[in-house]
Amino acid sequence: MTQKKHTVVFHPHNKTIEVEDGGNLIRAAMEAGVHINASCGGEGVCGKCRVILEQGELEGGADKLSREDGEKGFRLACLSKVKSDVIIRVPVESNVDSSVLNIAESPRHTARIKQVKLDSLKEQGMLIPPVEKKYLELPPPSAQDNLADVTRLLNFLKITHDEHRLEVNIDVMRGIPDILRQQDFKVTATIVRPVRKDGKNQIVHIEAGDTTARNFAVAMDIGTTTIYGEVLDINSGKILSSYGDFNGQISYGEDVISRIMFAEKEGGLDILQKKVIETVNKVLGKIIKLADIDKAEVTTITLAGNSTMTQLMLAINPRYIRRAPYVPASILYPPFRASDIGIDLGRHTIALIYPGVSSYVGGDIVAGVMGSGMYQTEKLTLFMDIGTNAEIVIGNREWMACTACSAGPAFEGGGISFGMRAARGAVEDFSIDPITFEPMIMTKGNVRPKGICGSGLITIVAVLFENGLIDNRGRFNRDTGTDRIREREGIWEYVLAWKDTTQIDRDITITEPDIDNLIRAKGAMYSGAMTLLEEVGLGITDIEQIILAGGFGSYVDLEKAMTIGLLPEIDPEKVIYLGNGSLLGAKMSSFTNLLRRNVGEVVKMMTNFELAETPSYMDHYVSSLFLPHTEMHYFPRLQGRMNARKKHGLKSV
Amino acid sequence: MTQKKHTVVFHPHNKTIEVEDGGNLIRAAMEAGVHINASCGGEGVCGKCRVILEQGELEGGADKLSREDGEKGFRLACLSKVKSDVIIRVPVESNVDSSVLNIAESPRHTARIKQVKLDSLKEQGMLIPPVEKKYLELPPPSAQDNLADVTRLLNFLKITHDEHRLEVNIDVMRGIPDILRQQDFKVTATIVRPVRKDGKNQIVHIEAGDTTARNFAVAMDIGTTTIYGEVLDINSGKILSSYGDFNGQISYGEDVISRIMFAEKEGGLDILQKKVIETVNKVLGKIIKLADIDKAEVTTITLAGNSTMTQLMLAINPRYIRRAPYVPASILYPPFRASDIGIDLGRHTIALIYPGVSSYVGGDIVAGVMGSGMYQTEKLTLFMDIGTNAEIVIGNREWMACTACSAGPAFEGGGISFGMRAARGAVEDFSIDPITFEPMIMTKGNVRPKGICGSGLITIVAVLFENGLIDNRGRFNRDTGTDRIREREGIWEYVLAWKDTTQIDRDITITEPDIDNLIRAKGAMYSGAMTLLEEVGLGITDIEQIILAGGFGSYVDLEKAMTIGLLPEIDPEKVIYLGNGSLLGAKMSSFTNLLRRNVGEVVKMMTNFELAETPSYMDHYVSSLFLPHTEMHYFPRLQGRMNARKKHGLKSV
Repeated sequence: MTQKKHTVVFHPHNKTIEVEDGGNLIRAAMEAGVHINASCGGEGVCGKCRVILEQGELEGGADKLSREDGEKGFRLACLSKVKSDVIIRVPVESNVDSSVLNIAESPRHTARIKQVKLDSLKEQGMLIPPVEKKYLELPPPSAQDNLADVTRLLNFLKITHDEHRLEVNIDVMRGIPDILRQQDFKVTATIVRPVRKDGKNQIVHIEAGDTTARNFAVAMDIGTTTIYGEVLDINSGKILSSYGDFNGQISYGEDVISRIMFAEKEGGLDILQKKVIETVNKVLGKIIKLADIDKAEVTTITLAGNSTMTQLMLAINPRYIRRAPYVPASILYPPFRASDIGIDLGRHTIALIYPGVSSYVGGDIVAGVMGSGMYQTEKLTLFMDIGTNAEIVIGNREWMACTACSAGPAFEGGGISFGMRAARGAVEDFSIDPITFEPMIMTKGNVRPKGICGSGLITIVAVLFENGLIDNRGRFNRDTGTDRIREREGIWEYVLAWKDTTQIDRDITITEPDIDNLIRAKGAMYSGAMTLLEEVGLGITDIEQIILAGGFGSYVDLEKAMTIGLLPEIDPEKVIYLGNGSLLGAKMSSFTNLLRRNVGEVVKMMTNFELAETPSYMDHYVSSLFLPHTEMHYFPRLQGRMNARKKHGLKSV
Repeated sequence: MTQKKHTVVFHPHNKTIEVEDGGNLIRAAMEAGVHINASCGGEGVCGKCRVILEQGELEGGADKLSREDGEKGFRLACLSKVKSDVIIRVPVESNVDSSVLNIAESPRHTARIKQVKLDSLKEQGMLIPPVEKKYLELPPPSAQDNLADVTRLLNFLKITHDEHRLEVNIDVMRGIPDILRQQDFKVTATIVRPVRKDGKNQIVHIEAGDTTARNFAVAMDIGTTTIYGEVLDINSGKILSSYGDFNGQISYGEDVISRIMFAEKEGGLDILQKKVIETVNKVLGKIIKLADIDKAEVTTITLAGNSTMTQLMLAINPRYIRRAPYVPASILYPPFRASDIGIDLGRHTIALIYPGVSSYVGGDIVAGVMGSGMYQTEKLTLFMDIGTNAEIVIGNREWMACTACSAGPAFEGGGISFGMRAARGAVEDFSIDPITFEPMIMTKGNVRPKGICGSGLITIVAVLFENGLIDNRGRFNRDTGTDRIREREGIWEYVLAWKDTTQIDRDITITEPDIDNLIRAKGAMYSGAMTLLEEVGLGITDIEQIILAGGFGSYVDLEKAMTIGLLPEIDPEKVIYLGNGSLLGAKMSSFTNLLRRNVGEVVKMMTNFELAETPSYMDHYVSSLFLPHTEMHYFPRLQGRMNARKKHGLKSV
């Protein structure tokens, strides 16, 4: 059953958008790029989002208005649910030419999500799992044929299944004699494929009877903050369950540096190793239960994390990661028994660790590069994982350059006066009336605002900039006539929400220092990308495709991110959002050993740059501390919008 | 300083022998093949071994005689120590032609000991240890070169040491970052070589500084009864220490079958595994202390044992070894960390297990075949490990056939009325006066006899047979005129020592059932060898060389063993005694990986025969239940001696 859809037409903008039955009217306006004053996040408190229902049916929007106003067609947009096709009129300043309304805001545009159809891998012949099961009906031994049990097994696999270079460890051997005899020498062998074709095929498990129908893998992203896991059915290519939980290490430090410092204390490494494994096991317990399988049926667990998370999980002290010249212990890790590091799976379950490139370009990024198919594309691609520790990879199937930059915590709401994580009450979308500069605020959960999250911050700064309220250095226009821009204790700020419409009983504002922090953060990333490009003799305009990874990428309004110069300006259609790239890569590797075969080469190909050691970086960084950049010609679309604003007499930079 | 030597001449035999200063006179006589009546083992109790000192100096032999007898030159041979060149007259029956005396007994002839000069392996370029150490002076990382520590190590090994296909496991990785930095990136890497040249080279240990001078291996023989170990210096090829102790499993059963039965009980396998490892660790502790090394400096331990001992040590239930069709769990075992099975060595110490062929031709035998060089010889070789479970290998470098036969415990003194292990007081050598049939008895430790050990039993039966006191079916001649042959409770026996000359206050005898047991035991072995030979189209006379392994081989008088038909009759010079073949093979493998490379092929080449499944075995066995065999023509030397005896009027068959 598909959801009923309704058409909403906004006047005088003459903008149309489709919404689902019961969809929130003010969100529909925001999506359509229609500004409606609103600063309470949708709780009906500020009462500013009055619109007129000209045709059709809305539910709930009249509840807080007088009967008279209701009968006149007034509705509070934030409380209105769309129940039929409707025509809405938004009251706007009379001195505005309605054509301006189309310039003011471009429709919200988030990145296209990369869809990976795992089940289609099978049809493409790509389903070559790193761990396979083979069913065997061995001839039982006799007086004339009393080969050793293991020899019998290996010989049969050679002759009838064309399996060679087989190896059995002593742990597995211990079970073989009895297991062979449980169902009259009918058994299933679980075989781990080597990374290199000429490597050994390890028999890691023998079960009585035919269990080939039950072969499951777990893919896991070991994030600094969160650990996500999925159970995959190797035979069908289906994801059976997923679950995420906070990394139990969080109480020992928010970021990798503080974790490393804790690990350097006596006993610290052991504690952090146990904590992350506790979370891994918690997530495992959940997804195994949800998938309704037995943990003994899991044959592989593929884990991807940054270099620090990887080393902590493997109990390898990450001490040298945080000290110049920033050396990780290893970038490649051999397969091992998951239970060896305390993971609560069968003794036979093999753990595969995603390789990294350097101390700050880790397995999570490599997993994204592999999972996104970037390593196979001809297009010059910019891969970005935006966050406190932001990673950038540029290249295509021929070459890749990568680096990490410390963007600071602004993208996660850190160092921002009213910054917060992307949780309930966070301002996530924003527009302003081009004449009155009154805001329209959307919050997570449609509740009164509590703070500003990273993607909200980008949008706010972009909107303030495009409306001429801040200049290209992020300084407020001191002469706008709106009381929302003000000076407090020597700091200029814009009031997003007055205290009576917030959850925190204070005005929620964005300040010049906040904007400065964001500019530094975005400048670090943009200049990182420019530096990499320059190192390989290319420029920012050569980029043909952007891949965004990490939680952040899904919310960010692409056009806004380009407006502030976080992303280079390209067609938003060419921006792909990967979701959790780390998990995606782990998942793909669980299904096809080709990724494992290729990843060693990819890692070798990924040239790592330490920005601090790259002389041109500082120049690029300084040039990037502007909105969007000193080189405005890299942003032709923004330039066009600015010019249009000026032509219509609107404020602009 | 070489020991002073003296010449002893025996008359009327006119036999000369060299002895060391202080050597026992009666032992010298036995060695020379000169019979002197003696039944107290050398304690001077029976007083029968009176000889006359004609020239030179003896010490101690006159102490128990009257001054008068002493002055006449009489001495008790068993108490006499040779202190100068001497001429001795042995009183013999006057009616014996002295030429007969040369026929009566052939000099004792034990097997030549296989000498393996491990230090010469180095000169031959054969010193290719399975575990090597490489010293590296790595360039420390810098801002321009911040490769991962493991990558730095592997790259350097590749470039400067031509080391490829390297692998490092996570355990080793954990230590690498700190170890590299302990002595400014100067380290020693311990590398385990693969069995196959195209396999992986495993880096198992990294140490700060240059430790290449300290690379030690342990070789160990895991016997059912005894565990022997040696510490070897890989660099010099020297054996630094050795020690043996009883296998702690002994209290759970004397032989492999009773151990298997115990292992099948609940918790039994675990107990036996722990017990054998306890002994391994005890022996290890001792040899490491004796060698004055640290256990962390041991890089490999090579273990060889029979299939049951191997499986018990690895905690692989040996249940199916004792049940038809006698299937072992495995014949090849991959290398693993010694500490994984509880061996008290470093985490990095690699355990190598000798492969076996079948349930009853195990790693101990394969080690003997490898250590003796049998797998390289062109000569058709008969390899025998004589014991309760006797193993036979026949072949050369082109082919090999092997089998095991249950000889019963006779060779170890079991099932023999006065049988005992080869300990103090055991009759180990024997001759008789060809006229009076009085015995000459040598015991271990020159004390009054307590019983008969395996090698003594063979000699006794051979001597009784050659002197015509038993027929070729082992039945006593009822008509000899000596009171030493008698019937007691329906059983005929020969009295070796009257009770007043024994330690046990009873006559020590050998009975017809004892002889029958020995005939069955030797028959099982001989017919085993014949069966193998027949299966490959050869005969017993084609054998060019015999290799004896096991503790038994060092004592057995070869001519006697051929007289009873335990060994085929060949030139005793062509019989080699290997000593502990299992330990020898383990030792050789510790020094040269070539053995490990070859052993897989050798094991494949060794065709196993189950005698019970080989129809001709029973026929051969029945034909072998004679002294020496129904086919007397296989024993031309014995035939010759018999004919000579008859010609001289001596008793014979």
